[in-house]
Amino acid sequence: MPDPAENAAVVDLLGLHSFIQLAAFTRFTKDAQHAPDLPGQVTLSRMAAGELAHLDQLERLVTDLGGDFYTSMGSYAALLGDFDQRTAPGSWWERLMRTYVAFGVLADLQRALSTRLDATTGAAVEATLADSGHGDFVVAALEPVIAAEPQLAARLALWGRRVGGEALGIAQHALAEHPLLLAHLDDDAAAGGGAAWVRNKLSTGHARRMDRLGLTA
Amino acid sequence: MPDPAENAAVVDLLGLHSFIQLAAFTRFTKDAQHAPDLPGQVTLSRMAAGELAHLDQLERLVTDLGGDFYTSMGSYAALLGDFDQRTAPGSWWERLMRTYVAFGVLADLQRALSTRLDATTGAAVEATLADSGHGDFVVAALEPVIAAEPQLAARLALWGRRVGGEALGIAQHALAEHPLLLAHLDDDAAAGGGAAWVRNKLSTGHARRMDRLGLTA
Repeated sequence: MPDPAENAAVVDLLGLHSFIQLAAFTRFTKDAQHAPDLPGQVTLSRMAAGELAHLDQLERLVTDLGGDFYTSMGSYAALLGDFDQRTAPGSWWERLMRTYVAFGVLADLQRALSTRLDATTGAAVEATLADSGHGDFVVAALEPVIAAEPQLAARLALWGRRVGGEALGIAQHALAEHPLLLAHLDDDAAAGGGAAWVRNKLSTGHARRMDRLGLTA
Repeated sequence: MPDPAENAAVVDLLGLHSFIQLAAFTRFTKDAQHAPDLPGQVTLSRMAAGELAHLDQLERLVTDLGGDFYTSMGSYAALLGDFDQRTAPGSWWERLMRTYVAFGVLADLQRALSTRLDATTGAAVEATLADSGHGDFVVAALEPVIAAEPQLAARLALWGRRVGGEALGIAQHALAEHPLLLAHLDDDAAAGGGAAWVRNKLSTGHARRMDRLGLTA
């Protein structure tokens, strides 16, 4: 028999995953509507649809564990708060960057919390966290612009730092509001201080993403 | 060997289908963001993703016919014009109704033009025009409200007529701007005056959709 307390912690994590997948879908579709050309709009729309496809799997997992899909997901409804308003992009480049940075941090959070799931659930969750190709899309779009325009590069570096800070704050807030999530950390992480270890891990991931663009975090 | 002129007409039609599928995706996602609850948001988001999934098939068909996917689709980029601005909904009900009416008319247009395709293309196109369930969703949401609130019902009837008129205008405009589309009408339709026959058919479909809601078109 599965342990009910452990089940509750897994359902809580699946709620986080579901909410972030839906948020990514929504963000990608909004970005798609601002794309400067039709191929860009279609590509981002397809990535959005890909993020949403994972919800079916997550819903099945939650239901199998005896949880309620919308309750588990809804408990994260305030996760992003007024992030969108506080980070209104001033250009297409800033918009691409914002999504790349914020959903990059959130994906790292999702992965950091999903290493200790049992084999079946773990494999299913891993599939839902598969790379959508969004990062590669953004790097391909931004890299040449950043290399060619030092002034824009400096502005985007600053922007990336600001959005990165906001995203790290969202991740910390999620852990503070949902202490069950910390149960999914492995022993190394727990020894490293739990939430502090996660913050450090996410900062490293953020720096790596900025570095891919030729920018310093 | 396929007839190049016929191929061009089919590519033109597939461009219309592709553009409408992308427009439906975009519209459903925007509506989803206004849904009053999480299940509604997820349901509409899933329908949106379903509409987009059909683009892959349409892209394959266009490419197989030697056409360019983005060119064929892009030739309809002005199709909706300022429809969104001219029909800004005043409530969630008006928003649901607008999408139901407008994309209902457009789906009827897509079907009316797709009856004479060769068997293989026809079957593939028919799959992309499959019912997304959006109509049933809207009817389930609006029917009880309309039955219970005569004043709202009267307002929605008026609104439905106005949006229906706009949507019929869009369909007529598409036929006027893309005369190749008329090549897809069958003999009965051609004998009935081509565009006039289509208008009549779409009006009938619109009246049927309003009737499902207990409203007069």
